[in-house]
Amino acid sequence: MTFQAKKTLLDRIAFFCILSLLFVCSDALKTQRFTRHGGSFTSNKISVSYETFYFEQKIDHFGFLEDGTYKQRYLVADKYWHSPGGPILFYTGNEGDITWFCNNTGFMWDVAGELGAMLVFAEHRYYGESMPFGADSFSDSKHLNYLTAEQALADFAVLIQNLKHSRTGAQQSPVIAMGGSYGGMLAAWFRMKYPNMVVGALAASAPIWQFTEMVPCGDFYKVVTRDFAISGRNCDANIRASWKSISNLSATASGLAWLSEEFGLCTPLKNDKDVAVFKGWLQETWVNLAMVDYPYQADFLQPLPRWPIQAVCKYLTSDWSASDRQILHGVSQAVNLYYNYTGSSSCLNTSETATGNLGMMGWDYQACTEMVMPMCTDGVRDMFEPAEWNFQAFSDECHAMFGVRPRADWAGVVFGGKDISSHSNIIFSNGGLDPWSSGGVTHNLSDSLVAVLIPEGAHHLDLRSANDMDPPSVREARAVELSYFKKWIKQAQKMQSNAV
Amino acid sequence: MTFQAKKTLLDRIAFFCILSLLFVCSDALKTQRFTRHGGSFTSNKISVSYETFYFEQKIDHFGFLEDGTYKQRYLVADKYWHSPGGPILFYTGNEGDITWFCNNTGFMWDVAGELGAMLVFAEHRYYGESMPFGADSFSDSKHLNYLTAEQALADFAVLIQNLKHSRTGAQQSPVIAMGGSYGGMLAAWFRMKYPNMVVGALAASAPIWQFTEMVPCGDFYKVVTRDFAISGRNCDANIRASWKSISNLSATASGLAWLSEEFGLCTPLKNDKDVAVFKGWLQETWVNLAMVDYPYQADFLQPLPRWPIQAVCKYLTSDWSASDRQILHGVSQAVNLYYNYTGSSSCLNTSETATGNLGMMGWDYQACTEMVMPMCTDGVRDMFEPAEWNFQAFSDECHAMFGVRPRADWAGVVFGGKDISSHSNIIFSNGGLDPWSSGGVTHNLSDSLVAVLIPEGAHHLDLRSANDMDPPSVREARAVELSYFKKWIKQAQKMQSNAV
Repeated sequence: MTFQAKKTLLDRIAFFCILSLLFVCSDALKTQRFTRHGGSFTSNKISVSYETFYFEQKIDHFGFLEDGTYKQRYLVADKYWHSPGGPILFYTGNEGDITWFCNNTGFMWDVAGELGAMLVFAEHRYYGESMPFGADSFSDSKHLNYLTAEQALADFAVLIQNLKHSRTGAQQSPVIAMGGSYGGMLAAWFRMKYPNMVVGALAASAPIWQFTEMVPCGDFYKVVTRDFAISGRNCDANIRASWKSISNLSATASGLAWLSEEFGLCTPLKNDKDVAVFKGWLQETWVNLAMVDYPYQADFLQPLPRWPIQAVCKYLTSDWSASDRQILHGVSQAVNLYYNYTGSSSCLNTSETATGNLGMMGWDYQACTEMVMPMCTDGVRDMFEPAEWNFQAFSDECHAMFGVRPRADWAGVVFGGKDISSHSNIIFSNGGLDPWSSGGVTHNLSDSLVAVLIPEGAHHLDLRSANDMDPPSVREARAVELSYFKKWIKQAQKMQSNAV
Repeated sequence: MTFQAKKTLLDRIAFFCILSLLFVCSDALKTQRFTRHGGSFTSNKISVSYETFYFEQKIDHFGFLEDGTYKQRYLVADKYWHSPGGPILFYTGNEGDITWFCNNTGFMWDVAGELGAMLVFAEHRYYGESMPFGADSFSDSKHLNYLTAEQALADFAVLIQNLKHSRTGAQQSPVIAMGGSYGGMLAAWFRMKYPNMVVGALAASAPIWQFTEMVPCGDFYKVVTRDFAISGRNCDANIRASWKSISNLSATASGLAWLSEEFGLCTPLKNDKDVAVFKGWLQETWVNLAMVDYPYQADFLQPLPRWPIQAVCKYLTSDWSASDRQILHGVSQAVNLYYNYTGSSSCLNTSETATGNLGMMGWDYQACTEMVMPMCTDGVRDMFEPAEWNFQAFSDECHAMFGVRPRADWAGVVFGGKDISSHSNIIFSNGGLDPWSSGGVTHNLSDSLVAVLIPEGAHHLDLRSANDMDPPSVREARAVELSYFKKWIKQAQKMQSNAV
């Protein structure tokens, strides 16, 4: 696959997202390729390294006709591992290059020494290098047919079984699953479906309830709006007003020209379709800012200053007397901060909301099949243009794009929906600033299904390396998580000694 | 499908079983069609009736390319149901016609009134009338590709979700899964994988550990042997001696003719292959007798007297001085009792071990894919000819027959293997006479994963209607099971009232 091929698909997907008017493509959930390393990097001022392996996995775990295999990539760091029997922290890779997750999950590296743990990062099929059909993996619905969460979970289970059998000293090692975002959903589901493989799971910022009829479809954008409302005077009001201002200016050719010039767009706006794409791009920008509203300078989706929403809100202070152009001048400055903090962009491209993205094709297919996450806006409780959730339209677009139709109810059936209290040993952590917390588990469901809240946290802040600017809430969250890891490890060791 | 078509396949399968020399085809596990009713029958002297429905199920729950549906049959009896909210007892159908299970699971009918329960019997895909591709369902490995336990469990989950949504008063109904044999395995796995759908499960005579490296491969036949050893003097010794006697007689044409005549075979034995088929048929006969060694006259696989092993052992009393013909005369009388208790057979057919069998094709495919159950004999600790477990030979035969290869480890990965203690609310009942108890859970794994033992019980005796000749142990077992049902129902109702 060349970059060009991916680029073309990205354009199609961006268009598709706009077409749907629903933003259920959920770009915001997508974790995106940010940077790539050869196998070592610096975390928390400690240089760490890992080895890369490839495991022969069945392409289809749930049928026997397709008996082919593919090479699943996984990374192992065993420098701190206490063998035999030391624990394994297993990252359930999500929709992207596994090295990116490895490099951005500093928490695992930070606790490896104290736990004497081996770290394993398993790549999700159809992402990064783990392509079931090589360059043909995305060619059609036939080749995409094995891209499901269930297959990915089965990959993890088979891989762990193999690791335990093939690594000297690992047979009795308790394994703990962990992941963030969709990776966090996988970690939770993995403990639910394969408790024989992992003694517990940390599901960070995992919106396992962002499915049909589990949470109100408008909650996600309400959190986004609140983030802006608390970050600067008039900030959310300016964004709410901006849509009408864009519509007003778009009514004339001179207005379109002004907009294109003001925002420094690479391709000038020409018609209503372009304007719809432009609005969608802005909406995604606000969502992405909400996800990465970290307390320190970071470069998760884009290089950004600390508390980036506060930074952009400095440009969004107009009051009710402001003109359309005054409001949109502020918006353009805000957007420019997000896309051009380093000053390296000569123009802005409305088909991209983050840097080079590895997993978009795959994730859009998953959103179009089982990961159906209804979203809606009303413009009152949120700062966006009203848009209802329309499953039929969504389904039709999925069918046009991939030749498959989503199954809205399936995730609830197979992954337990709201009724998961009979499971055990899962931590659900959520950040109060993270829009995905709207679909997360934010209250304890039992003694061993616990919710950890990080009021000042954005998207899985707890999985990032410790930082001097971390708020106390995330420090406490990590301490609680670590204490549960120790408890689960002790439980497992006790059960093993009872079994002997 | 005509009977002729099935007959041809049965012949192929019987041949295949013999070829394998392993008897892993596990005919003994197969539940077989015994009799068929239109929708009502008499259980425990109470006439009961059910309605038949068909539910539109996805052919493939785990992929989106195949979007077709098929009609899954299910039976509902709601005469005793307390609506709203009364419990549902849900039979997780196994490898056969669901009306047969409905008619042979009198226990559910016996307790329906006391629990105010609705009874639902769901047919397993690829059995009975629930054919994903109609007459083509067994035509090749492509059409058979959706015959897995995982797909069947997903069918059950989707069906229950639909029942709860579509039946007035059922939304809050706690559902309890139950089944026997492979149906019991499904009931246990269903509670493990979909605890959102069922509050508990009764897994009767469910050999969930009869998989690779979980129990010794010889245990199954040791139980069979013990049943004969305790049922008559010299009984197991006669059977152990009979194999050599058959080999001795088979060395000459006159010996073969004598054997064919003595056993009243429909087709005379001509060569070594016929003799191997003949021995395999005898071995399966002893296994079947062990499964149906019930304390009263019954007709589970064949019409038989009470304690049928004691009855056949009356013919198997020869001592060491007996000749080959004397020993085999006894065997022939014993076998005749099994196949011709009603006196209606004019000759015996070595390619059939029970009456008209619905599920053999399907089950052999399942045994050749994920239900790999190693079996072996040594002739010392059991009464059979020595035969080692040879996975490669088994795999080759499966490939020759179905074009697929078994995955020996998969069941252990996906269904938890021996490490299932984190699950809850499952009763594993086992009969001491039942060879399948060798792969069952016969000790408590936790407070809510409980083993119920029925020393005088054969294959899922507890699921049958109460009978005056029932031994106390099965009466107690049913009482314990009923008390757990009540406990689970109460737990569920408490959780619901807490949630309100």
